[in-house]
Amino acid sequence: MDYPALFSADTHSFFRSPVRDIFKKVDLSKIYSFAGGYPSAETFPLDDFSKLMQKVIAERGAQAFQYGATQGVTELRQAVATRYDVPIERVQITTSSQQGIDVLTRVLIDPGDVILCSNPSYLGAIQSFKSYQADVVGVPACSDPAEYRRRWEEAIERCLDNGKKIKFLYAIADFQNPSGETLSLEQRQILADLAHKYGFLIIEDAPYRELRYEGEPIPTIYSLAPDATVHLGSFSKIMAPGFRLGWMIGPEEVLDKVYVCKQSLDLCPPIFDQYVAAEFMSSGMLDANLEKSKALYRSKRDLMLRLLEENMPEGVTWTHPEGGLFLFLTLPEGFDAVKFYDKALAAGVAYVAGEFFHTDRSGHNTMRLNFSFMSPEKIEKGIPLLAKLIKNEK
Amino acid sequence: MDYPALFSADTHSFFRSPVRDIFKKVDLSKIYSFAGGYPSAETFPLDDFSKLMQKVIAERGAQAFQYGATQGVTELRQAVATRYDVPIERVQITTSSQQGIDVLTRVLIDPGDVILCSNPSYLGAIQSFKSYQADVVGVPACSDPAEYRRRWEEAIERCLDNGKKIKFLYAIADFQNPSGETLSLEQRQILADLAHKYGFLIIEDAPYRELRYEGEPIPTIYSLAPDATVHLGSFSKIMAPGFRLGWMIGPEEVLDKVYVCKQSLDLCPPIFDQYVAAEFMSSGMLDANLEKSKALYRSKRDLMLRLLEENMPEGVTWTHPEGGLFLFLTLPEGFDAVKFYDKALAAGVAYVAGEFFHTDRSGHNTMRLNFSFMSPEKIEKGIPLLAKLIKNEK
Repeated sequence: MDYPALFSADTHSFFRSPVRDIFKKVDLSKIYSFAGGYPSAETFPLDDFSKLMQKVIAERGAQAFQYGATQGVTELRQAVATRYDVPIERVQITTSSQQGIDVLTRVLIDPGDVILCSNPSYLGAIQSFKSYQADVVGVPACSDPAEYRRRWEEAIERCLDNGKKIKFLYAIADFQNPSGETLSLEQRQILADLAHKYGFLIIEDAPYRELRYEGEPIPTIYSLAPDATVHLGSFSKIMAPGFRLGWMIGPEEVLDKVYVCKQSLDLCPPIFDQYVAAEFMSSGMLDANLEKSKALYRSKRDLMLRLLEENMPEGVTWTHPEGGLFLFLTLPEGFDAVKFYDKALAAGVAYVAGEFFHTDRSGHNTMRLNFSFMSPEKIEKGIPLLAKLIKNEK
Repeated sequence: MDYPALFSADTHSFFRSPVRDIFKKVDLSKIYSFAGGYPSAETFPLDDFSKLMQKVIAERGAQAFQYGATQGVTELRQAVATRYDVPIERVQITTSSQQGIDVLTRVLIDPGDVILCSNPSYLGAIQSFKSYQADVVGVPACSDPAEYRRRWEEAIERCLDNGKKIKFLYAIADFQNPSGETLSLEQRQILADLAHKYGFLIIEDAPYRELRYEGEPIPTIYSLAPDATVHLGSFSKIMAPGFRLGWMIGPEEVLDKVYVCKQSLDLCPPIFDQYVAAEFMSSGMLDANLEKSKALYRSKRDLMLRLLEENMPEGVTWTHPEGGLFLFLTLPEGFDAVKFYDKALAAGVAYVAGEFFHTDRSGHNTMRLNFSFMSPEKIEKGIPLLAKLIKNEK
């Protein structure tokens, strides 16, 4: 295999560090890895893919392999527009939702501009922001709406007092990476209000939104402020990451800038893959497969929550995600999850230290655990092992 | 169809201009379009693609749809390394060779840095360079080696005198876009020497290199200066553009920067498509298909050259490309190919005005003609029509 299962989209940089050398010393197949943000390979409907590919070749012929429109092929844009009830003009297909984050940062940010986000937040986004020399300002999460609003307003006012320009606020409203937490409708409304009040955009990154295992869906931030929000979606978690396809729904004036930039970036998203994705959506295969994926992930989440409950020592807490791929552990004050990592890996368990998701590199005593990728058997062995190691550490 | 055949990778921006509205008024199927840089759809071996896709699904299973390595899948990197006789460590797969141009510019260029290139040069590269606020310095082509060296050295010295940093020289050595011209071995050696002497990199963009219709291949610039050259290749013209795959061969210290940047960009190239491309190369299908493509394009080139000879009025000259997709027309002084465009399109012929490829927006009396995309029947009607319109214009 090309890529050890420990690796993931948002942990590459971490593993590019000296830590990477560890992989040369360990037998990867024996590792219980809760590090990666991988979907489970079981959820990829290979027969469906195979059938759709034949269909696309038969029906589209050479057109499926020629250059295509920078915005994406009409069929896929229309399928996304229909699913999310937006006009097709507001839909841009991206070569992965990571590209959506990157291209928006590129067209919107000048060096020194402020990007607001939750602290902690998605590592891959923070890296992209910092690569454009944005000033990334993290605001700690909080469930009380009044306090939530106060924290954001305080951060905003401080930026403005310092003469900074706030270009956008980056939010993962559903089953956040890394925390697994979901913003309430009230919290979303607060963000939408702030965007209007202070005149900045919201980038709503929603790669996990369709993976809800309990409770009712909450309206997107986009639906509350369609004029001030760009909503990013991904096929990676509802179809397969190997297609590298995502979408962007947003105001046409933002999409117009994205269009021009995307020409320079890669001209257009992969054409054949887009037709396959369009068929996957319009045929109903996506919805059928999503139900199966959700059942699988729900059971893995429940298993991990139960094992944490049964095995973790006192003083360790964790989030209860209503969906997505991750939960977030908080260990006792003074615990250093980065330092502990070598020991855990040597014993056979991997995670991502929470510090890497913090804009200010705080969160030393936190870690992110993924529950989608490992088999139930490995979860059953890996979590008690991790708990034992943590106990010994104390 | 999503995308009018007139459009192409490097003409999008052109058509984003008010000119685009013309398309609403003309019947696209009746246009003779020599504008786009499209390969001919006839060259896409659909049966081969279909077979290989089944094979990849059968043999790789879910792995072909999971996240993959940022550098690209090992099988494809190895196939490229073998074909071009370089170590695999020097191969990075890109999500289109356009991405290669973009990512190199992003990791190498600070605002105000100089990028040297031929004048004219590939529009999509110039746009990418300018989007990073590079100072793009174009040097007019010239077949005499001594004069060729003098021109480059003069441009370089002028930049250095002005306190500028020259980061890289961008060259399309084989069948240049837009001119169709090929650098001699001596010219390539001059560029390699200059790179060493002045300590800059060469970006050798080689999307057409394998499409040679006459004469012997000339060693790449990369082979003359592997320590100072990044060679960019593309699957778009030897397989199909719809896969959006290319490659980069270069020094490991450059590829290391590209690796980190590509994580932020899109994490990894499309996985399934990479496996299909790897099989296409290693099975021998690529070479077999390439022979067919070359025969087709050679005959189209010859047809266009003959028709130009027979129909163009005196005072019009054109290049004789030994390969690639384009030839370049020079019209009498004072001819304005941008202004003439509306008239030509209204009459049913499209091209790209040469001005758009010039770093200084000179070349008003030039135009680029593509001979790969249109059928022989359309070439036979379109070129005499274009010639007639030019005659009337004089």
